[in-house]
Amino acid sequence: MRLVNFEEHGAPRLGILQAGDRVTRLIDVAPGLPQELGALLQLGPSVFSQIIAALVTHPDCETRPLSSLRLLPPAPVAGKILCLGLNYLDHAAESKMDRPQDPVIFLRTASSLVGHGGAIVCPAISNTLDFEGELVAIIGKRARHVQRSAALEHVAGYSIFNDGSIREYQRRTTQWTVGKNFDATGAFGPVFVSADELPAGAKGLRIETILNGVTMQDANTSDMIFDVAETIAFLSGCMTLEPGDVLVMGTPAGVGAARKPPVWMKPHDTVEVRIERIGTLTNHVAAEEPVSSAA
Amino acid sequence: MRLVNFEEHGAPRLGILQAGDRVTRLIDVAPGLPQELGALLQLGPSVFSQIIAALVTHPDCETRPLSSLRLLPPAPVAGKILCLGLNYLDHAAESKMDRPQDPVIFLRTASSLVGHGGAIVCPAISNTLDFEGELVAIIGKRARHVQRSAALEHVAGYSIFNDGSIREYQRRTTQWTVGKNFDATGAFGPVFVSADELPAGAKGLRIETILNGVTMQDANTSDMIFDVAETIAFLSGCMTLEPGDVLVMGTPAGVGAARKPPVWMKPHDTVEVRIERIGTLTNHVAAEEPVSSAA
Repeated sequence: MRLVNFEEHGAPRLGILQAGDRVTRLIDVAPGLPQELGALLQLGPSVFSQIIAALVTHPDCETRPLSSLRLLPPAPVAGKILCLGLNYLDHAAESKMDRPQDPVIFLRTASSLVGHGGAIVCPAISNTLDFEGELVAIIGKRARHVQRSAALEHVAGYSIFNDGSIREYQRRTTQWTVGKNFDATGAFGPVFVSADELPAGAKGLRIETILNGVTMQDANTSDMIFDVAETIAFLSGCMTLEPGDVLVMGTPAGVGAARKPPVWMKPHDTVEVRIERIGTLTNHVAAEEPVSSAA
Repeated sequence: MRLVNFEEHGAPRLGILQAGDRVTRLIDVAPGLPQELGALLQLGPSVFSQIIAALVTHPDCETRPLSSLRLLPPAPVAGKILCLGLNYLDHAAESKMDRPQDPVIFLRTASSLVGHGGAIVCPAISNTLDFEGELVAIIGKRARHVQRSAALEHVAGYSIFNDGSIREYQRRTTQWTVGKNFDATGAFGPVFVSADELPAGAKGLRIETILNGVTMQDANTSDMIFDVAETIAFLSGCMTLEPGDVLVMGTPAGVGAARKPPVWMKPHDTVEVRIERIGTLTNHVAAEEPVSSAA
């Protein structure tokens, strides 16, 4: 099952992505289901069979081409966006950091993210906008004090993330938060892919970041230091993970900051993050528009 | 104007705190206004005069004692909770950290917070639960690229925070996020106090933290390294601050971790954070209840 979240008349709308990149609105085939991913996932994995059954009974339902939609991040804005840093050995090495003993976690806010096709914004006050291609795991079942062996039962599905970072601000103090939360500097999408379509823990998938057609990162999701199951076991010992919360699993080597000379994203660039069997998250880069303080 | 957010039949409800600690439901006197702080503040400071006028025209409206209400954090869960670390020189010194050159920022999630009177939870996996008394500034007007001289126009009011921290997890990696986001380890409240009731920037106010009747922190809000105006100027250069977003302004010296031997909060403790002219945020500490992974 592949779901997309798109904008319709200014509001978010869930859609089912079908063969030929056609999208059916969930509300047209299953109006009784929650129309927001987190709430939908709370119903458990059987909700996907319900949706498939509903599709069968509405064979003539209107569909629209995926390319015609303005996509939003697949998961709701209300959830926690928990991101891992330094979660690939080669990226920790290029960043001159030690292998972490525990997952290194920071948070992103929803306002720092755009959907597939949206503009990643290069801010006015810094030109150090960097890309980070990452796997996302989306929680489907509340998790608290979960053992690693049972952790993947709490994952509803996966998606793709570009953890765009303003390096200058990420490194101005010990805490990375500001550099990770400039408006519209990250991207999330295009689709939610249910866990049953992928290997356990989304392992063994090629992950690539391509900037203006040039491959900048090329790795495999099996190279993570802390995999999805271990991350859930660790975090759920500290806090409750709720349906719709997302885990952004860290980036492999090849980021712009580690190159000599550094490679920063700039207006008119196109950046893609591809993960095998999930899809491609594509964004262009735009200059920040001047905003008055009264806006 | 003093507002509280309390639970009624499982849902949040805004109330106006009046003389004699009596609370009037906002919906009873002004049903046409938004019933959530962030949305209410978007109407601008004139909304407070509207509420006062509405109160006058409803002199016989039912009130209830503040002590009878289950208080929630005053600001909505959807906003950003931006917290400053090391923002008092004496606390930076006791933490063996340098004076920061820029505000040191981390994020808390709403699920890490309880309201006034709620239980701060001492987690099962660590006994290093520490207190941090702090001032909160609540954004009332969207802020983007705001100059310091105009920054306080964007503050709707103030409140109190206990930035409860699991020190062991805060320090396990370079990023403090996990140790700052255990479930129900922080507290926020009791009231929202509009900016017109306090000195500009809430400066010059005594701030104290009292654990089981013993004063642990005793400082003045004028001792901050980065004041509210400077923090807004800095952050709004990076991200848009929205009505309802909160800035948690850092803690002075005296935290439990810096004492010899350390003082940790434990079940049955009572912790209070007092800020002059705002009020007292009181919480008790409870042991984590056993939770099965299936919960």
